[in-house]
Amino acid sequence: MRLNVFRLLVTLFLINSVFAQSVAVDRRSILGFSPDSAARQYDLEAKFDAQLKAENLTNWQKRLSARPHHLGSAYNKENADFIAAQFRSWGYDTKLEEFQVLFPTPKTRIVEMTAPEKFTMRLQEPEVAGDATSGQQSEQLPSYNAYSIDGDVTGPLVYVNYGVPADYEELERQGIDVKGKIVIARYGGSWRGIKPKVAAEHGAIGCIIYSDPRNDGYYQGDVYPKGAYRNENGVQRGSVMDMPLYPGDPLTKGIGATKDAKRVDLKNAATLTKIPVLPVSYSDALPLLKNLDGAVVPESWRGSLPVTYHFGGKTPTVRMKLEFNWDIKPIYNVIAKMTGSERPDQWIIRGNHRDAWVNGADDPLSGMVALMEEARAVSELAKTGWRPKRTIIYAGWDAEEQGLIGSTEWVETHAEELSRNAAVYINTDSNGRGFLGMGGSHTLEKFINEVGKDIPDPQTKMGVWERTRANQIVNGGSAARKEAMERADLRISPLGSGSDYTPFLQHLGIASLNIGFGGEDGGGSYHSIYDSFDHFQRFADPGNVYGVTLAKVCGHATLRLANADTLPFEFTNLAETVSGYAAEVTRLADAMRDETKAMNQIIANGMLKAVQDPKETYVMPAAKENVPFLNFAPLQNAVAKLTESARVFQVASKGKQINAAKQAELDRLLYLSERSLTRDQGLPRRDWFRHQIYAPGFYTGYGVKTLPGIREAIEQRNWTEAEEQIRLAAATIEKFAAEIDKAAAIK
Amino acid sequence: MRLNVFRLLVTLFLINSVFAQSVAVDRRSILGFSPDSAARQYDLEAKFDAQLKAENLTNWQKRLSARPHHLGSAYNKENADFIAAQFRSWGYDTKLEEFQVLFPTPKTRIVEMTAPEKFTMRLQEPEVAGDATSGQQSEQLPSYNAYSIDGDVTGPLVYVNYGVPADYEELERQGIDVKGKIVIARYGGSWRGIKPKVAAEHGAIGCIIYSDPRNDGYYQGDVYPKGAYRNENGVQRGSVMDMPLYPGDPLTKGIGATKDAKRVDLKNAATLTKIPVLPVSYSDALPLLKNLDGAVVPESWRGSLPVTYHFGGKTPTVRMKLEFNWDIKPIYNVIAKMTGSERPDQWIIRGNHRDAWVNGADDPLSGMVALMEEARAVSELAKTGWRPKRTIIYAGWDAEEQGLIGSTEWVETHAEELSRNAAVYINTDSNGRGFLGMGGSHTLEKFINEVGKDIPDPQTKMGVWERTRANQIVNGGSAARKEAMERADLRISPLGSGSDYTPFLQHLGIASLNIGFGGEDGGGSYHSIYDSFDHFQRFADPGNVYGVTLAKVCGHATLRLANADTLPFEFTNLAETVSGYAAEVTRLADAMRDETKAMNQIIANGMLKAVQDPKETYVMPAAKENVPFLNFAPLQNAVAKLTESARVFQVASKGKQINAAKQAELDRLLYLSERSLTRDQGLPRRDWFRHQIYAPGFYTGYGVKTLPGIREAIEQRNWTEAEEQIRLAAATIEKFAAEIDKAAAIK
Repeated sequence: MRLNVFRLLVTLFLINSVFAQSVAVDRRSILGFSPDSAARQYDLEAKFDAQLKAENLTNWQKRLSARPHHLGSAYNKENADFIAAQFRSWGYDTKLEEFQVLFPTPKTRIVEMTAPEKFTMRLQEPEVAGDATSGQQSEQLPSYNAYSIDGDVTGPLVYVNYGVPADYEELERQGIDVKGKIVIARYGGSWRGIKPKVAAEHGAIGCIIYSDPRNDGYYQGDVYPKGAYRNENGVQRGSVMDMPLYPGDPLTKGIGATKDAKRVDLKNAATLTKIPVLPVSYSDALPLLKNLDGAVVPESWRGSLPVTYHFGGKTPTVRMKLEFNWDIKPIYNVIAKMTGSERPDQWIIRGNHRDAWVNGADDPLSGMVALMEEARAVSELAKTGWRPKRTIIYAGWDAEEQGLIGSTEWVETHAEELSRNAAVYINTDSNGRGFLGMGGSHTLEKFINEVGKDIPDPQTKMGVWERTRANQIVNGGSAARKEAMERADLRISPLGSGSDYTPFLQHLGIASLNIGFGGEDGGGSYHSIYDSFDHFQRFADPGNVYGVTLAKVCGHATLRLANADTLPFEFTNLAETVSGYAAEVTRLADAMRDETKAMNQIIANGMLKAVQDPKETYVMPAAKENVPFLNFAPLQNAVAKLTESARVFQVASKGKQINAAKQAELDRLLYLSERSLTRDQGLPRRDWFRHQIYAPGFYTGYGVKTLPGIREAIEQRNWTEAEEQIRLAAATIEKFAAEIDKAAAIK
Repeated sequence: MRLNVFRLLVTLFLINSVFAQSVAVDRRSILGFSPDSAARQYDLEAKFDAQLKAENLTNWQKRLSARPHHLGSAYNKENADFIAAQFRSWGYDTKLEEFQVLFPTPKTRIVEMTAPEKFTMRLQEPEVAGDATSGQQSEQLPSYNAYSIDGDVTGPLVYVNYGVPADYEELERQGIDVKGKIVIARYGGSWRGIKPKVAAEHGAIGCIIYSDPRNDGYYQGDVYPKGAYRNENGVQRGSVMDMPLYPGDPLTKGIGATKDAKRVDLKNAATLTKIPVLPVSYSDALPLLKNLDGAVVPESWRGSLPVTYHFGGKTPTVRMKLEFNWDIKPIYNVIAKMTGSERPDQWIIRGNHRDAWVNGADDPLSGMVALMEEARAVSELAKTGWRPKRTIIYAGWDAEEQGLIGSTEWVETHAEELSRNAAVYINTDSNGRGFLGMGGSHTLEKFINEVGKDIPDPQTKMGVWERTRANQIVNGGSAARKEAMERADLRISPLGSGSDYTPFLQHLGIASLNIGFGGEDGGGSYHSIYDSFDHFQRFADPGNVYGVTLAKVCGHATLRLANADTLPFEFTNLAETVSGYAAEVTRLADAMRDETKAMNQIIANGMLKAVQDPKETYVMPAAKENVPFLNFAPLQNAVAKLTESARVFQVASKGKQINAAKQAELDRLLYLSERSLTRDQGLPRRDWFRHQIYAPGFYTGYGVKTLPGIREAIEQRNWTEAEEQIRLAAATIEKFAAEIDKAAAIK
């Protein structure tokens, strides 16, 4: 987060004027509110802000992180009861919703090198000085990857870098096959679950994932407990279920994992890994990496351990033995409701998970305690006689860490009501010090920008929105910088996966937001026993001042959504965004066509072979099928229609005066519009994912793919499917535009 | 040297046709030769090639590297006598030319950490198994930097990354001052002599330079003796005299260091360092780096040692004590002449240095033995009755390692004759396996491309030129790739410094070339005791097959230059190149203007301050003077004139028939043209460097600055000087164009 002078561009010329303009605005209007309502809302927000107390966050964080509280643990249930009791005491209609879900825990974990020398991994994070909870070994979940299958495999080791498909292309050029071998991949470059998935697709029999200090350790900063970063014994736990297929309980795809739900047999659970997989620390990985034979890996594959990184393939030989208890365990979502006074059947849902891998002071409690304080402050407003126009639901999800299980099972159980009633879902998760991160549905982009502009930054004299914008201008790449200077709104990120918005947005098509602060709280406690209260208060957000700021952003957003005369959906930003995605997929096909042609040519004319070092192995790649020109016209026409519909709606909305019944009708059209961006048939080969604009990548895991049907078909070189997906996406966008037209027509 | 698929660009479309075309050419014409002469020259080259024997190179390399042979050593003199005897035996008029030069060698070398813990550096490279000469400790020069001053200093340590000016800007932003402190810099990022120079400019009292494994060690590949790369004890020796000021003997600037030359006092020698400096291994550096305090350095500063890199500034405390024997030592250039039959006063000079830091099998012997075999083969041609039209001089320079001393003193001593008679200087130095590297005067670009096109590559079925071009197309950046596909000639690199061409080209304005193979011979033996015969034959160019190929390239070049009817100078490539440089300096000023304005604005409007992490130190930079618009018109007009003159010369040269006397007159105009690219007054603040198109950078050392007067004035923000230098460079180019006009007019 430090300025790189050399990245500053000519486009910075206009900063002075633009900057002066944006900070000088004294906003009095609010999207979706009449001038009178807006004035009242500002008063309400001032009262809300006055209620927030940082010490509440810190006290709750300390209490909730005092012992390990993972899925199924005693303290997790204690926390659920505690949180529910708090909500009840604040006047919310509160319950624990229980589900029964598959949760494997380790029975046996052995990883050893058997040749050329003997070494057995420790697989244990030790207690460290100054960290009060790091010694609670009896209650800690051991370090492991949940939903790895059982296995006892022995074979030679191959280093596969991040273990993504491009890495296996490099291995192929090197003449290295992972068939019958164990791979070792470093964390990073993709969501962890992709690594065993791709390894298995290539015939590997086992997968070790380790944290390289280049990505997560001493290269980044001083290690714990001296500094915030991952020490040599730190391990990143985490789920490896095949979430891009479907999240939630592996045995109950698409339905709630209630006690009596119909479950598939364990052996038919599609999201378990195909091979055993275990995460390890860099001190455990080092002896294996030292013994890898074969050629030296390319520069982009090298980490920061004091060794020369090799591919391996013959040496060393490694054995992995993993056995799990395949239990069904109860989980508990805390659900707290405040019913709306005027439109109770329009729900504003606000959630954060509350379960952790171990003590989880940062992940998830830094976000969870902000949500609790937000809910408490809202309840204080209610004590003065105020009631929200719409219903507000606060949720503390369980079992997020294992695969968004709590939220997914709840969404699947209540799918029908939610499809009808849910207006917006606002998610938070870990929170830290720094800049405002905003992701979500672009129908809410203008809304959340407006919210952000009213919140002061606790460290500077600016607002959080202005400081985030300044950061994009000072430290951003040239495109981001230009955009921050020229665009009225900061662009929000499209959502892939990685937190509880996924079932809402991508399964049901509920417009969603994901909000959090960060960028000045670097560290490496993620999913380790060192994600503790002591660590968080030293390094992440001491005193939870950004926790309070998060409560403000999300509290204002929730209150505005709950109170607005008309829901603050807006479509021109979405239209512009989707138009950009359409241009991207077109360029993607063009670039692949050019690259394929060029590559085929240097293969055919012998240049590619000629420039290889004859002393090194290089397996010539086969020529690839040329990329045909695709018919993007349906998509382009649909985007043009969308753009026009968005414009017409914007014009029609200006100063619109309609009665309450019409307002409620308009509201329904607005929040149901996101549903029309889904298809019941879902995406190819993964029907659980229904949204046609946003999805987690099949080979990225968390990383988003926009226009996913089209984009992934092109990436997978499936031209027939690409043409088909262009038509389907176009039809979806046309359907969405027609809904906007209906909304515009209401008078 | 491995293909990166993603860097392939659209421009690759045309490869097939271009490639087919270039390999199919059956060239029979040679630049500067009539058709008849060309046919005879091809016969001669075939006879020359048939003479070359790889075993000669290998035998000489083994003999010459059998013992350390640095400046002043017994074995260095033995080698000089041996090489001279060889040349004599081949019929060359051979002599040793002796000079007396300043050469400090270590008397005391102590570097120790005194706090927070005690550690004394070993400063010794050990013998390794399988390397026959690594144990010759009694004859090895200890690891040190020549021309460091004596000193005994103690102070806190600061890590300064590469120690270039931009690094001190970062330190300033961090609020860290090196005044009164010792700096530790890693090798890389600049020529080593820049590091103590810039450190001293900022008030440091001592400088340690170490080889970080990121740049030169296990990160790059397996270390010696397992692999070719620098092991934990390897040290890079090297000169740190201020060569960008002037190279050669520090006591005899601009004149030959003959026995009776007028010498300045040691205390007035301008090119000694201002502070003591010593190079160390990474095992010696590690304990110090571990103990650095302060903030963590930016990512681009981090190496590959298993530590978190910090700036330091208070801890640790380090003591350096260095004392040298400040001796005057004799050096011996081997000079071997074959007088020309028709134009004996036109000299083609071909040189390589023969001294090493230790055993130097690679640097310089891999090039030196290729030169010897080339000279032997030429002598075999002479035995058949053939004589070169022009005089050929072979040179084996001494004392290159200490600062190009042998070549510089020779050039300074013979400046008058050389200015009159030297037509071209062709330099080689270390040579390895891989692709053809060509640098030099762009008046010779077309010539050396033509030479390269006739030489077969020993590893593939292509020619060396075609393989090098293919490499640029397959692995080059987009601009280099486009150029390789579209341009008839591969672009040769402009020369900065780092080998013996410097006094010829940059002091006297003698058109020069620098030739060598490499890119498939990575390793880290540079300037260490491990640069041995064993290392070279295992890792660099086993059997010296590329040594023979180098002898072919340089032999053909020498023979063509010696035999041509008219010297093969050509000016359109130069004009195009200089036109490119002029555009670059214009863009440089524009970019600095935009960056300065943008930076000043984000300082003034508070954005820069606002985005800094308030928990970290950040000293706000001061606003900089805005960059004025400079008058580039004189330069642009001069380049236009040059372009036109080059075109007219090219047209006039086509099929020109002139008698021998006119040919000799034309030759003189051609080779003296490079002189007119110099100014007697030299560059600002360094009058020894006279060339106005090429110079080593004042703050890069080896790295070239083209249009150096203009470019460095802009970089140093000296606008008055920049305007002045634009006028001077323009006048120089106009003068050069006028010389081309004279050459074109000869009939």
